[in-house]
Amino acid sequence: MRLDQDVRTLTAELVDIASESGNEKPLADAVEAALTRLGHLTVDRDGSNVVARTHLGRPERVVVAGHLDTVPIAGNVPSRIDGDRLYGCGTTDMKSGVAVQLKLALLTEPNRDLTLVFYDCEEVEAARNGLGMLVREHPDWVRGDFAVLMEPTDGEIEGGCQGTMRAEVRTTGVRAHSARSWLGVNAVHRAAEILNRLLAYEPRKPVVDGLAYHEGLNAVRIDGGHAGNVIPDECVVTVNYRFAPDRTEAEAAGFLAEFFAGFDVRITDSAPGARPGLDHPIASAFAAIVGGPPQAKVAWTDVARFSALGVPAVNYGPGNPEVAHKRDEYVELAKIVEAERVMTSWLT
Amino acid sequence: MRLDQDVRTLTAELVDIASESGNEKPLADAVEAALTRLGHLTVDRDGSNVVARTHLGRPERVVVAGHLDTVPIAGNVPSRIDGDRLYGCGTTDMKSGVAVQLKLALLTEPNRDLTLVFYDCEEVEAARNGLGMLVREHPDWVRGDFAVLMEPTDGEIEGGCQGTMRAEVRTTGVRAHSARSWLGVNAVHRAAEILNRLLAYEPRKPVVDGLAYHEGLNAVRIDGGHAGNVIPDECVVTVNYRFAPDRTEAEAAGFLAEFFAGFDVRITDSAPGARPGLDHPIASAFAAIVGGPPQAKVAWTDVARFSALGVPAVNYGPGNPEVAHKRDEYVELAKIVEAERVMTSWLT
Repeated sequence: MRLDQDVRTLTAELVDIASESGNEKPLADAVEAALTRLGHLTVDRDGSNVVARTHLGRPERVVVAGHLDTVPIAGNVPSRIDGDRLYGCGTTDMKSGVAVQLKLALLTEPNRDLTLVFYDCEEVEAARNGLGMLVREHPDWVRGDFAVLMEPTDGEIEGGCQGTMRAEVRTTGVRAHSARSWLGVNAVHRAAEILNRLLAYEPRKPVVDGLAYHEGLNAVRIDGGHAGNVIPDECVVTVNYRFAPDRTEAEAAGFLAEFFAGFDVRITDSAPGARPGLDHPIASAFAAIVGGPPQAKVAWTDVARFSALGVPAVNYGPGNPEVAHKRDEYVELAKIVEAERVMTSWLT
Repeated sequence: MRLDQDVRTLTAELVDIASESGNEKPLADAVEAALTRLGHLTVDRDGSNVVARTHLGRPERVVVAGHLDTVPIAGNVPSRIDGDRLYGCGTTDMKSGVAVQLKLALLTEPNRDLTLVFYDCEEVEAARNGLGMLVREHPDWVRGDFAVLMEPTDGEIEGGCQGTMRAEVRTTGVRAHSARSWLGVNAVHRAAEILNRLLAYEPRKPVVDGLAYHEGLNAVRIDGGHAGNVIPDECVVTVNYRFAPDRTEAEAAGFLAEFFAGFDVRITDSAPGARPGLDHPIASAFAAIVGGPPQAKVAWTDVARFSALGVPAVNYGPGNPEVAHKRDEYVELAKIVEAERVMTSWLT
């Protein structure tokens, strides 16, 4: 794989090396070989995860990350060009981003030290995620002052991400035969107050590092009752709280405990949000080059994995998120060129 | 089986002829043979269901019914006497009642025409119930002006029974990812109003034919939601309405439609109540002999099967309902004698 070719043909070449989740090795081999050949980068590898770094002694380090895997191929490999678009599995999510990363590897004198992270298994269950593994096992490889994850954002900056927490909010009662319901206490009826509070919930919309977030608190499941003639003695409302990155997980749990005061609240799972860090000079410079107002990322994304290392992070990539995972997935060729221009300008 | 023996020893003999549900044939054979030998009764049979009738041309006909089957034997057959009690499977539920029925068969000149119904499969699923079969297939065998079902009531009259109706009350919404919950509409939150109405529900307690009933309306199940990150687009509250016998099933359905106005209400199953008919002269005479205030039956019972024929009915039997279906099931011997006295006095 030659890195000095046009970023658009490089994208096509990456698409044509199939790399469904769990089968990234051929592509990781090609990436590692191409990076090693350049000579000015330290290249580390663990499994199908490859990390390349400059060591120029710059005061700041920028991390640019992307995943090598794709969802299952659906008759859409090899890639094909049709007009202004490149079609094929992974064109938008996210081999066009990976192509831009590889072009950045050619910069021998970037204005900040540069870390390029290529990881596996992003499209499958979180436990297999390669970036998560690197953060846990090789934190020194992926540390930096600011990170850009080149997931498809249609060429806009999506900053940070919101955290997510699930909790079971529980009522109890006293079981009885429904023919003599007054001998029991109906736990489902008692859940009315939980739902009333959810209906009255007013979401916070805090501005964090210049970006406006939008929280959410919702019942995602409710379950109570045993049989058609029994007064239920338990009802469980599972709620999902999406919280802005100005709150820690502990603060989010405290909010839920207070919001559902009087009920039994059990946190069942949780993931922290990530601050966008756009108030940092490195990030401001990046935003100025991209142009247009950055958007807050409300969904949880892999950028939050950098939070564990205290690294602010944003999503920015040439792909169109609306066609990701679709059979007719495509990327606009001009967007790849534009992303390369933005990233190169920012780092030189 | 000799019917001229003491009602207590007759009960013991009935207990000792095992008759778990589905295996009533030996007992039905013995009952049919004993009744046929008497000569003054018409005896009809279908399967293990036996019906014996007088044809004296009386202006009124009384039906006395009981089931021949028991729950599974649990090391408690044959019967044994201990002090004032007869122990064994079916002693209370309801071979003591059946023994009283058989003693009534000896009355050659009852003051009302008499129908004695012995049926199978009361302790198992409703579809197999012998009384239900007789009402459907042989209504002429079981018709009358008033019926007594000799289920265990501890020697009190339990009049009529309440109806039962189940309905699904449904909300709908718009599915969305919980990270952007404002793009969806949460069907579980919308169910708050259903639960609020249930919490505010005030039960009717109407007096019907002199007995005070007590209605009930309860959620017996609630179910909504798909996954931990999806805004639910449907929530179903299953409610059970227990209604007094002054309401028909149609009226009960109308009440539910009005109570849950604005929601999708679907009736899923229903069984009518039964009026106690205690304002009828036959019934008043019966209540006077039993003494003590009759109680309204709030649970659904087989007496409601007579409602399909327009026959008011009550439960009255010598057994103690609290020990039914228990391993140490028993009946007090004096209660059997008392029940025989009441029934005989009433019918002569």
